[in-house]
Amino acid sequence: MAVGLDSVSQLLAVDGLQLATCAAGIRYADRDDLVLIVLDEGSNTALVQTQNRFSAAPVQIAARHYKITQPRALLINAGNANAGTGQQGLDDALQCSALVAAELGLLPEQVLPFSTGVIGEHLLIERFSIAVPSLATDLSKDRWVEAANAIMTTDTVAKGESIQLQIDGELVTLTGVVKGSGMIHPDMATMLAFIGTDAPVAHSLLQQSLEFAVDRSFNCITVDGDTSTNDACSLTATGRCDISIIEDSADPRFKKFQAALYELTQALAKSVVRDAEGATKFVEINVLGGHYDACKSVANTIALSPLVKTAIFASDPNWGRILAAIGRAPISSDEINMQEVSISINGVSIVRAGELVSDYQESDGQTAFNQVDLRIDVRIASGDQVATVWTSDFSHDYVSINADYRS
Amino acid sequence: MAVGLDSVSQLLAVDGLQLATCAAGIRYADRDDLVLIVLDEGSNTALVQTQNRFSAAPVQIAARHYKITQPRALLINAGNANAGTGQQGLDDALQCSALVAAELGLLPEQVLPFSTGVIGEHLLIERFSIAVPSLATDLSKDRWVEAANAIMTTDTVAKGESIQLQIDGELVTLTGVVKGSGMIHPDMATMLAFIGTDAPVAHSLLQQSLEFAVDRSFNCITVDGDTSTNDACSLTATGRCDISIIEDSADPRFKKFQAALYELTQALAKSVVRDAEGATKFVEINVLGGHYDACKSVANTIALSPLVKTAIFASDPNWGRILAAIGRAPISSDEINMQEVSISINGVSIVRAGELVSDYQESDGQTAFNQVDLRIDVRIASGDQVATVWTSDFSHDYVSINADYRS
Repeated sequence: MAVGLDSVSQLLAVDGLQLATCAAGIRYADRDDLVLIVLDEGSNTALVQTQNRFSAAPVQIAARHYKITQPRALLINAGNANAGTGQQGLDDALQCSALVAAELGLLPEQVLPFSTGVIGEHLLIERFSIAVPSLATDLSKDRWVEAANAIMTTDTVAKGESIQLQIDGELVTLTGVVKGSGMIHPDMATMLAFIGTDAPVAHSLLQQSLEFAVDRSFNCITVDGDTSTNDACSLTATGRCDISIIEDSADPRFKKFQAALYELTQALAKSVVRDAEGATKFVEINVLGGHYDACKSVANTIALSPLVKTAIFASDPNWGRILAAIGRAPISSDEINMQEVSISINGVSIVRAGELVSDYQESDGQTAFNQVDLRIDVRIASGDQVATVWTSDFSHDYVSINADYRS
Repeated sequence: MAVGLDSVSQLLAVDGLQLATCAAGIRYADRDDLVLIVLDEGSNTALVQTQNRFSAAPVQIAARHYKITQPRALLINAGNANAGTGQQGLDDALQCSALVAAELGLLPEQVLPFSTGVIGEHLLIERFSIAVPSLATDLSKDRWVEAANAIMTTDTVAKGESIQLQIDGELVTLTGVVKGSGMIHPDMATMLAFIGTDAPVAHSLLQQSLEFAVDRSFNCITVDGDTSTNDACSLTATGRCDISIIEDSADPRFKKFQAALYELTQALAKSVVRDAEGATKFVEINVLGGHYDACKSVANTIALSPLVKTAIFASDPNWGRILAAIGRAPISSDEINMQEVSISINGVSIVRAGELVSDYQESDGQTAFNQVDLRIDVRIASGDQVATVWTSDFSHDYVSINADYRS
């Protein structure tokens, strides 16, 4: 079960977006595994995709379509990633778009396909043929929770978030859903996130705000560039909220929107970590003092260390492993000052000025490590930049889940 | 238990080297945990140490002593790494050298200390005071196997190797012992290796040959630079073999010696992987086609992927995870050609020219993955350079061992 996180049970509708889900039998029995999201005409959509060289077929097709025109529909399936599937995979992803386009009277290029699940198996495209027409007749604004459930793979809870804010006296809504429970290990299965808002935001600003938010949320639960074959995050602004268009990045309304989007993506990103495969702890790592990139590199090195993660799983205050991880982080020597290095866990100071704190008691460290939510604060030098990374522990269940995933 | 590897039961004496071991009570009950190796006068010693910024106290003291003079004795303890121990740690490591020096009539600078075990605890130095005098009176050429046992921490088998070769009609012996069972995860506990030979090799050549051999053996079971706080490998040449000194790198006798040393270190390195914590499989990864560094980077990315390692543990032919790891390896795009990428496992061709082999049968993949020894061959481009990395799988026992190590 997720660490301090229940399945989302309520999400706010976004004017201009309609959703439908169904059990298409792509991989799972007795559960929804296919989602259609229809975007009203005039919607703007921003898109961020994986940087993995072996991007999946739907990633390639979605990128191609997105270059041609603004999307009017998103089709998402769970259970099969359609990755490593060669030319047939590309044909299948195209076929997914064509099926939706035919039902909705769109061009195939106006439909973006997304897939998540096992790599290296072909889609059973005939199941899509049967399912898509029924999806098209079952659209509703109130299906976000169903969508959050239908995109799950090894996730244990459905994840989503809604935020509302006032802009020009009008209520603006942002709602997002996310799947992924392995981003803690960046080479893992797909992370997909779909966000909608009724705010009227110009397309160039929308892309800029999504990249800013993703950088400081989803990209903080993974190592930069270490993306999976299928990762994607889309943000659609329908513009249905009755305020004038936001098209200037200096507009204070844009800053408000940007802050709300950042809050939403951070909440979604943290929920992915709380539902990380086999997680029993939620860990926030703050590294302070160097330049941002150096701080983030140190934070990632700690976050990805199997030794640190197994110690956290065992609630073992084995701070030496954190020290060793800091010591091998791939940063230049002038970014770290051994005499400045300090470590504290949940407020318990353990290392200060590069040495064990003289009155440190193992019992205090034990109390700190016993918590389910762990905050690790590290100083590497005397500067004031900080990077934050969220991660989880490494448990027996992690091994079980990933040893058994396909069987 | 180690994968296809028993505890070493016989090792050849090296003329000019004497060893003693005892149960000093440093951490463990009822087993030897302290080793003294005395090097005859005139011996040359080469040394390679960790690059971790938080190098342990004995690493710092050994480096300092090694700069001053050639060593005459090595003192190695298991159970406590004397790392992260501040000034007292340095004082303790110095004291270890001083104790041995006093017993043997040497300068403290002629004694190199080595430690392995838990980080962040102080040595119980009074136990060294009691143990060292008894070690000094118990020296023998025939204690290599005892030494291999005494330096173990989480190792499940004692590891060592002897090789003999003819040079100028004389029998030359090389014997080495190694400990470490976590180098598969490079931030793990210490790897220590001690090698002796009776060959008369000039000091500059000795250091060169050790660095060459370590680069292609111990550094191929870890990511470059991702060393622990205590890693060290020493090579002592006593020169007791009755041949003239080898002091020219163009001397064919040096090439023979170098080849034998490489063979020895590779055998020791592989034995570490076979005894990797929780290992149930032994995996050799060969990456071909790019420049050496690019090939090694891809091999390491595969070798360190928790997803690949858990799939191997489960004997699950989930080749998509290998493809995804190749896709995210941190190399430049011109080092990899998607149309050249191929993957085969134990000779079963799975991916060719970037696509799934058309007549690939999952049952063939299953047969390949069922083997205990796995060989993964990857081509990334059309060049002919190759890098090899050895690794193991990721099992429940790995988590157990590292969650319980201190308790």
